[in-house]
Amino acid sequence: MILNENEVTLDDLQNGYYIYQPTDGFRFGVDAVLLSHFANVKPKEKVLDMGTGTGIIPILLAALTKGEHFTGLEIQKKSVEIARCSVSYNKLEDRIDIVEGDIKNASEIFGREYFNVVVSNPPYMISQHGLRNREDSKYIARHEVLCNLEDIAREASGVLKTRGRMYMIHRPFRLAEIIVTFAKYNLEVKKIRFVHSYVDKEPLMVMIEAVKYANSGVTIEKPLIIYERKGEYTDEIKEIYK
Amino acid sequence: MILNENEVTLDDLQNGYYIYQPTDGFRFGVDAVLLSHFANVKPKEKVLDMGTGTGIIPILLAALTKGEHFTGLEIQKKSVEIARCSVSYNKLEDRIDIVEGDIKNASEIFGREYFNVVVSNPPYMISQHGLRNREDSKYIARHEVLCNLEDIAREASGVLKTRGRMYMIHRPFRLAEIIVTFAKYNLEVKKIRFVHSYVDKEPLMVMIEAVKYANSGVTIEKPLIIYERKGEYTDEIKEIYK
Repeated sequence: MILNENEVTLDDLQNGYYIYQPTDGFRFGVDAVLLSHFANVKPKEKVLDMGTGTGIIPILLAALTKGEHFTGLEIQKKSVEIARCSVSYNKLEDRIDIVEGDIKNASEIFGREYFNVVVSNPPYMISQHGLRNREDSKYIARHEVLCNLEDIAREASGVLKTRGRMYMIHRPFRLAEIIVTFAKYNLEVKKIRFVHSYVDKEPLMVMIEAVKYANSGVTIEKPLIIYERKGEYTDEIKEIYK
Repeated sequence: MILNENEVTLDDLQNGYYIYQPTDGFRFGVDAVLLSHFANVKPKEKVLDMGTGTGIIPILLAALTKGEHFTGLEIQKKSVEIARCSVSYNKLEDRIDIVEGDIKNASEIFGREYFNVVVSNPPYMISQHGLRNREDSKYIARHEVLCNLEDIAREASGVLKTRGRMYMIHRPFRLAEIIVTFAKYNLEVKKIRFVHSYVDKEPLMVMIEAVKYANSGVTIEKPLIIYERKGEYTDEIKEIYK
């Protein structure tokens, strides 16, 4: 399949890989990068990215980890096409599959207890009914039009093996809801890390590790701070983006 | 009632009030002070402190807020006696009552939907069976011997009016359990603030505001940092302890 070069850009990820992204559609942000660094994927593990978009997370995880195989599940046909082009451009066909399908059916598509790890950078915002851009791919990536937190928790728990790990990045205002919803599906939150722009500001994002059927008890990690001062990244962010 | 002066000290709270504390027993710490500053008590409100110990939180709240009345509920007879002496020493009998009783029966003792605000600085640690100091007052203040999180959530929800607020300080490792347990009793967590010794360290404590029957959606406040550098408090802590 050939992409129309007016519709996409080919961007250098600075880790040996490249990614196609729609010129006009949803382009990956710092959240996908931070989540890929937060996720702990061990050698030989099988990983599912729920709502992979352009496939950014599987490609970053392929570079960062020794995970055996990464599956990106994506419902939007155009994103699936773009993601497959990136996989093929990077010659990652052996390690990454992009599957067209609905998160709501993940445990039907892949079978129960199949994956060691699930990652997801899901839509952050609750969908507002009646908005005219509900068909728009950017709107779908950002709002819970096609799936919600409960769908993600239920299906992640379904496809994860016992003691399998779920990694998610989300907005802090939904943290309590995430913890309660995860608990309903036996995903026990074990690690939380907040991401702050500056040390003296409220967090912008939260990263969560949950483990299927784990005991309760959570570690709140030290805050991840993005800026040391205006225009200057902290050493940790420099290390992530080096 | 007269206290034996070998058994207690009388300490100046630097806010116009004094507190008796057992020489040998549980003495209040930074957590009680931080929780009193975190709790939002409005004029004319009625407040219950679950597990008040020496009554430190009602006395601090009486100084800090225009709350109409504060009740300290305490199961240990010796603590009740000491707390009553402090109330009387400070001539706070009109604003503070110390009630001897069990948190597990709070909604029976006070009736349902009676308080606007509940505060609690409960035992942090899960009780270990078979330890010989389970009778010890310090052990009881620190471990869930006589009540656990579920008792506190159930009874707080029972005695709180609709939209009443619950304030608790606890150890971060129990945050997920707190959120899930609160949700079970319709206490929706609305604000979370972590307390860190230093900005680049994991939090030591977490302060939580929950509202009975609220919608979901939580604000994670900026971190409360104790030390600017070794031996020097941050401005915020200096302000609290001024």
